[in-house]
Amino acid sequence: MGERIMTSVDPALAAVDQAQASWPDWTELERTIARAAFDAAHDRALCSLINEVQLQAALVDSAGSLWQLHDYLSIQRHRLEGRFDFRPQAILFLFASLVKDNLLDLSELEGLADGKLSKIRAMAQF
Amino acid sequence: MGERIMTSVDPALAAVDQAQASWPDWTELERTIARAAFDAAHDRALCSLINEVQLQAALVDSAGSLWQLHDYLSIQRHRLEGRFDFRPQAILFLFASLVKDNLLDLSELEGLADGKLSKIRAMAQF
Repeated sequence: MGERIMTSVDPALAAVDQAQASWPDWTELERTIARAAFDAAHDRALCSLINEVQLQAALVDSAGSLWQLHDYLSIQRHRLEGRFDFRPQAILFLFASLVKDNLLDLSELEGLADGKLSKIRAMAQF
Repeated sequence: MGERIMTSVDPALAAVDQAQASWPDWTELERTIARAAFDAAHDRALCSLINEVQLQAALVDSAGSLWQLHDYLSIQRHRLEGRFDFRPQAILFLFASLVKDNLLDLSELEGLADGKLSKIRAMAQF
């Protein structure tokens, strides 16, 4: 039987290495800034949805309006869960769309490299 | 080519005949009573669901509780729409379950034949 070579790796260091590998063009500081901006925008989108649902729910007075609330909630849940995807491949597009929708201010992204910021700024114009 | 025999039938009479054919053991008066009881119980179930949804919606303060409301609404909509099926094959079972759930009172079914009423009463005990 062949000999199995055991290697020992510090799990914390491995996690950092892995994050670095999947976010190759991002510094650790940039990732932290991105995560905070992402979370803030997600909270705003969620708050706005909760407000809308509470408003609609208070006005429900028939099967029709109840099922309309359900349909609305189904679509918005699908949209919110699909939209907020924290992966480097899509994050610049997401930030641009969030800036466009007033869910994020460009100032919250300060600290990202100029190249990233100017891409986000340019795309937010579309 | 064979000759086609055309028959002329009063559409209103045809509709009555059709209803009678699909509800063979029910008089027209019994069908009217059944429909009124069905509608009343449906309205009560709906009102109770609307109250519960409004109560839950007012307390939503997180993604977790919002999706919980959505899940609840999905299940209850499916249940309500599936349960209220106005067909003679299932109507006695439905009435029995509605009586059991306090969504219908036996007195609202007065006018149905004794045989039907005693079946409903007996099943509502289970």
